Amino acid sequence: MTTLGNMKVHEITRDYGIDGLSITERNIPSLSARQVLVRLDAVSLNYRDLLIIKGIGRWRPPAGRVPLSDGVGTIVETGSEVQQLTLNDRVAGLFFPNWKEGAVTTEKTHDPLGGPTRDGVLQEYVMFEEDQVVKVPSYLTPAEAATLPCAALTAWNALIEKGKIHPGKTVLIQGTGGVALFAAQFSLISGAQVILLSSSDEKLERARELGISQLINYKKTVNWEKAVLDMTGGKGVDHIVEIVGGNNVDRSISALAPNGLISQIGVIDGLKGEIEISKLMPKEGMVQGVQVGSREMFLRMNQAITLTQLHPVVHKIYPLSAIKEALTELEQGNHYGKICISAERNQ
Amino acid sequence: MTTLGNMKVHEITRDYGIDGLSITERNIPSLSARQVLVRLDAVSLNYRDLLIIKGIGRWRPPAGRVPLSDGVGTIVETGSEVQQLTLNDRVAGLFFPNWKEGAVTTEKTHDPLGGPTRDGVLQEYVMFEEDQVVKVPSYLTPAEAATLPCAALTAWNALIEKGKIHPGKTVLIQGTGGVALFAAQFSLISGAQVILLSSSDEKLERARELGISQLINYKKTVNWEKAVLDMTGGKGVDHIVEIVGGNNVDRSISALAPNGLISQIGVIDGLKGEIEISKLMPKEGMVQGVQVGSREMFLRMNQAITLTQLHPVVHKIYPLSAIKEALTELEQGNHYGKICISAERNQ
Amino acid sequence: MTTLGNMKVHEITRDYGIDGLSITERNIPSLSARQVLVRLDAVSLNYRDLLIIKGIGRWRPPAGRVPLSDGVGTIVETGSEVQQLTLNDRVAGLFFPNWKEGAVTTEKTHDPLGGPTRDGVLQEYVMFEEDQVVKVPSYLTPAEAATLPCAALTAWNALIEKGKIHPGKTVLIQGTGGVALFAAQFSLISGAQVILLSSSDEKLERARELGISQLINYKKTVNWEKAVLDMTGGKGVDHIVEIVGGNNVDRSISALAPNGLISQIGVIDGLKGEIEISKLMPKEGMVQGVQVGSREMFLRMNQAITLTQLHPVVHKIYPLSAIKEALTELEQGNHYGKICISAERNQ
Amino acid sequence: MTTLGNMKVHEITRDYGIDGLSITERNIPSLSARQVLVRLDAVSLNYRDLLIIKGIGRWRPPAGRVPLSDGVGTIVETGSEVQQLTLNDRVAGLFFPNWKEGAVTTEKTHDPLGGPTRDGVLQEYVMFEEDQVVKVPSYLTPAEAATLPCAALTAWNALIEKGKIHPGKTVLIQGTGGVALFAAQFSLISGAQVILLSSSDEKLERARELGISQLINYKKTVNWEKAVLDMTGGKGVDHIVEIVGGNNVDRSISALAPNGLISQIGVIDGLKGEIEISKLMPKEGMVQGVQVGSREMFLRMNQAITLTQLHPVVHKIYPLSAIKEALTELEQGNHYGKICISAERNQ
Repeated sequence: MTTLGNMKVHEITRDYGIDGLSITERNIPSLSARQVLVRLDAVSLNYRDLLIIKGIGRWRPPAGRVPLSDGVGTIVETGSEVQQLTLNDRVAGLFFPNWKEGAVTTEKTHDPLGGPTRDGVLQEYVMFEEDQVVKVPSYLTPAEAATLPCAALTAWNALIEKGKIHPGKTVLIQGTGGVALFAAQFSLISGAQVILLSSSDEKLERARELGISQLINYKKTVNWEKAVLDMTGGKGVDHIVEIVGGNNVDRSISALAPNGLISQIGVIDGLKGEIEISKLMPKEGMVQGVQVGSREMFLRMNQAITLTQLHPVVHKIYPLSAIKEALTELEQGNHYGKICISAERNQ
Repeated sequence: MTTLGNMKVHEITRDYGIDGLSITERNIPSLSARQVLVRLDAVSLNYRDLLIIKGIGRWRPPAGRVPLSDGVGTIVETGSEVQQLTLNDRVAGLFFPNWKEGAVTTEKTHDPLGGPTRDGVLQEYVMFEEDQVVKVPSYLTPAEAATLPCAALTAWNALIEKGKIHPGKTVLIQGTGGVALFAAQFSLISGAQVILLSSSDEKLERARELGISQLINYKKTVNWEKAVLDMTGGKGVDHIVEIVGGNNVDRSISALAPNGLISQIGVIDGLKGEIEISKLMPKEGMVQGVQVGSREMFLRMNQAITLTQLHPVVHKIYPLSAIKEALTELEQGNHYGKICISAERNQ
Repeated sequence: MTTLGNMKVHEITRDYGIDGLSITERNIPSLSARQVLVRLDAVSLNYRDLLIIKGIGRWRPPAGRVPLSDGVGTIVETGSEVQQLTLNDRVAGLFFPNWKEGAVTTEKTHDPLGGPTRDGVLQEYVMFEEDQVVKVPSYLTPAEAATLPCAALTAWNALIEKGKIHPGKTVLIQGTGGVALFAAQFSLISGAQVILLSSSDEKLERARELGISQLINYKKTVNWEKAVLDMTGGKGVDHIVEIVGGNNVDRSISALAPNGLISQIGVIDGLKGEIEISKLMPKEGMVQGVQVGSREMFLRMNQAITLTQLHPVVHKIYPLSAIKEALTELEQGNHYGKICISAERNQ
Repeated sequence: MTTLGNMKVHEITRDYGIDGLSITERNIPSLSARQVLVRLDAVSLNYRDLLIIKGIGRWRPPAGRVPLSDGVGTIVETGSEVQQLTLNDRVAGLFFPNWKEGAVTTEKTHDPLGGPTRDGVLQEYVMFEEDQVVKVPSYLTPAEAATLPCAALTAWNALIEKGKIHPGKTVLIQGTGGVALFAAQFSLISGAQVILLSSSDEKLERARELGISQLINYKKTVNWEKAVLDMTGGKGVDHIVEIVGGNNVDRSISALAPNGLISQIGVIDGLKGEIEISKLMPKEGMVQGVQVGSREMFLRMNQAITLTQLHPVVHKIYPLSAIKEALTELEQGNHYGKICISAERNQ
């Protein structure tokens, strides 16, 4: 194998923070037999990326780490024993490169992409083991496909793999962030009924365009759990995508139907909260923590996306040169849908 | 309680057969405390009704039996302790009046409606225990609602309750009969992919209008199992709604994907067949017998139907006076969708 | 039907509290067609009975209420339409008389036996609907059988119906109360491994006699969650029977294995607590509230008990005349196994 | 890495058949980075081995193939990147080296050990990828541990992973072969009730010593399905380990309880049969094909075996020099328990 030369890489520096990101050059890596080299076409941003870039708490990486988990690119070289993939395949890397299938374990979720211990995708080329990428649906744009590895798969795992929602079920979704909107879309293609919470009438209006008719502005309807009970004839919802965390979990338990499931995904309001866990007892309700998902789940999700011709909701596509503006918009939190970055090449 | 007078009833006579049906008069029954009296608005026909009317094999009822399981009507009187229902509610009777919920047992499936041991709904009024009926979706016409108790619930039980299909799954449906078309509709609202078999290009064309794009005319494509494998990249389908029975089960096993499920529902080609059951082993495939379903399943189905505003496929609505023509058309087997009978009153 | 005369009944009076219990006479009730009359042979006590007798919070019944949910007796009379039961059958009443089968609902758990709205079994005779009792295993003594309706069924529901434990699974059980000891016994007959927590070396020693070898005195080993992790090679336990509630739930989450399940059953330390719910996320752990259980679960449990010839752990059997001493011992909380009351007749 | 020299290998020759086995010498293989070299201590025989050695039908290997899937040995060398295993670990190879976890697929079951396309364990040393072996319970003898990879794991997969048997369930087991006896033992440690069929009173007597009390000699009780119905109060059994195949499946369906599961494992009486599949319908019964199992299932099984200190039933241990006598005894089919071969070294 010959060297492909140099490539541009974004690194987190000792200064941390968005402004601390710096561009450097590295050698394009050499492949071993079962690896593929991927030239990145687009990436997308998750709230977790900000925690890592800013070096907050357990998310703090060493200086020199390349951030970002979610990206899609084109295979430009394959190792000698690669069997399932070929040149020009469009692929995305796994958020958890070691979680191929089966139930989660500590080992499988070690070393997530773009986390404290493994470089991410904010670089021109990334080398992957053959089984650490999956092909993405061909009808999606690079930016759309770049939204799948973390946000979409988390929503898929919560609702379909674990929640087993089906036509007639009710799903409460908190907010309009990346996971929330995918959760709404997956609920709709499953024949389930969505109730959506947001603090913005404008965002609620855009959610209505997705096909959601039960909308609650929780700034105006402060007691949203009561509103949810009213909307469901007093019964509560079957499934809650819990993105707020903290004390909010207690409110979600109040809004839950008998045998309902709360998928604990986000912790915007804190890691812990004052929770009246005993309220789960009369209704035999459940709270389950949810991780991103495995390679097999990703494949199943792509099959469903392709079949239903679903398009991820993209807020805006920035050029790579505007990566700091993109991260700043993410930080401000007023976006609706995923913020993406394009590699600015002809695709 | 006062007597409501007389009503017209269709009875199977010692002659059996469609022509053996005769109209007689009976007293309108008196209610006990937990019963409701339902005036029938519409009924729908199932293949099983023919077996009973003709008195074939284990389906042969004693003379005097009232046939038909599927009907919808209006509550015109309620017993003193009835709590969940009220006058003018539109309800359908349960196919298995004793199967309220939970897994099937021999006891729960005793005495099905319109079977050898219990009078059915081909009469002006039927008396039910309060918990032996369910309210039907209000936006459906009486004829549409009359198709739900047997055909729709069987398909729902097979695909949703047992099959747990979800977006991205593939479903093979055999034919365009009542259960088959409901199976297609429930698959589509679940985000699953449907492959449909029929012997008629015209019926396949009508199925295309439902939104099904993978269609096989098994008269022309004799080796349909191979066609199914080709359509699925050699993998086979995840779920098969097996309506033919007999030797056909062996062909379905060939078309099944690893971990796939065959829902054994119909026996048009016979109760038994030559089956290479060992083909299930390498793929860990399953064959499961499916019954109609429980009251709780009916309620869940109605919730899904209402939410997705699904309309049953009705082939034709006959007036009650043309019941024999309707049964004859059913016998001929060229219909597409359910054959219904209207009670010819102002509704 | 002829009247059977009078019977003795224990009622809660306006004074509430153990000393407020008083004996009165009532007519033995007359049966309707589907009812049975049961003469009580033995009852057993649950912590909930103290809350009701003392009239605490939402457990406060009106004066005149008969307490206690758990009792076993002999059928002495049957209504004219009773089919499944016969004279001299030994039966126990259902804790939730309306929960026959299927998933829990609000309606099914209305009006529990011996609760604020329905008289319990601390009386000579109780009248039940035919389907509100189940036959108990014949090899058990009346006192043993009287322990089944609440404590045993709760443990069965948590471990077998919901937890689906099987050989090789690990189960952490908190304490040596009624539910806890049944949980230990059901775990052992399922081939699972039990870790038991208690504050008393003496009780741990008695647990060892049941066949449990992994024992933790949490008074001495204050950081019991660390001890549990050590015992499981750092992995944590698969299933936790959470009986303490409140802040203890947070500690249970720390001791849970990936994909593990916490069955929330007891609230000794309070209805709510400070819980770091986000710790469920990396391990995709679950917390599920558990109710007592349905009639069908009771039947399945009895089948398992009979097959394995399991004997409930009975702490002591008091005569009915010593009911107040029995309740006082329950209140003191130093018992090991169930406290029972015998009806003091020849059985 | 240095060469370890030569080793003895048993090969199938062009003559096929037991007498066609011949001993040759091969180089001990050289390891790559993630491989381990295992010196075999004991192997065990399965009926499938006879089909391969005799070259029957689709089991026919090319000449030179080394037979046998089930063996246990000691690690004598590890590749430079091996992390989970170390020298002197006692391990068994996976029957399906590519099935690590998750549901079965065609790819995962390619190239089974000792099958037509991959050499088996009837050799002095075998080289494995690190994740193609599992450590075996340390308290077992080499012969006992050698019985686990195929027979035990198949039974475990059928009953525990798929069947989810639990205390109180009933299990019908056909025969006293390897899978059958493991199925009996796993049923017993799960608290389930076993009914065992055999043609030999002597074997039934030995089964009684395992703790099984419901025994049927099907040579004497020709209508065994009726006997099974009688033993279960007319209800049938919850789970059937179907080892006979062919027309026998039809009889198993008759003996099945509502919601029961038939695990299709063996095909002694043929790959296909005349089956009245419609008998599954009223009871919603299931037939499921079962494969051996995955690496993760093997690990879970070992945990259960270790916890319950279960000992596999070993019929006889032959020395390696008597391999042909051992295969001949297997062929005669009068053994009770597994036939094993010891490597005749100091262990």
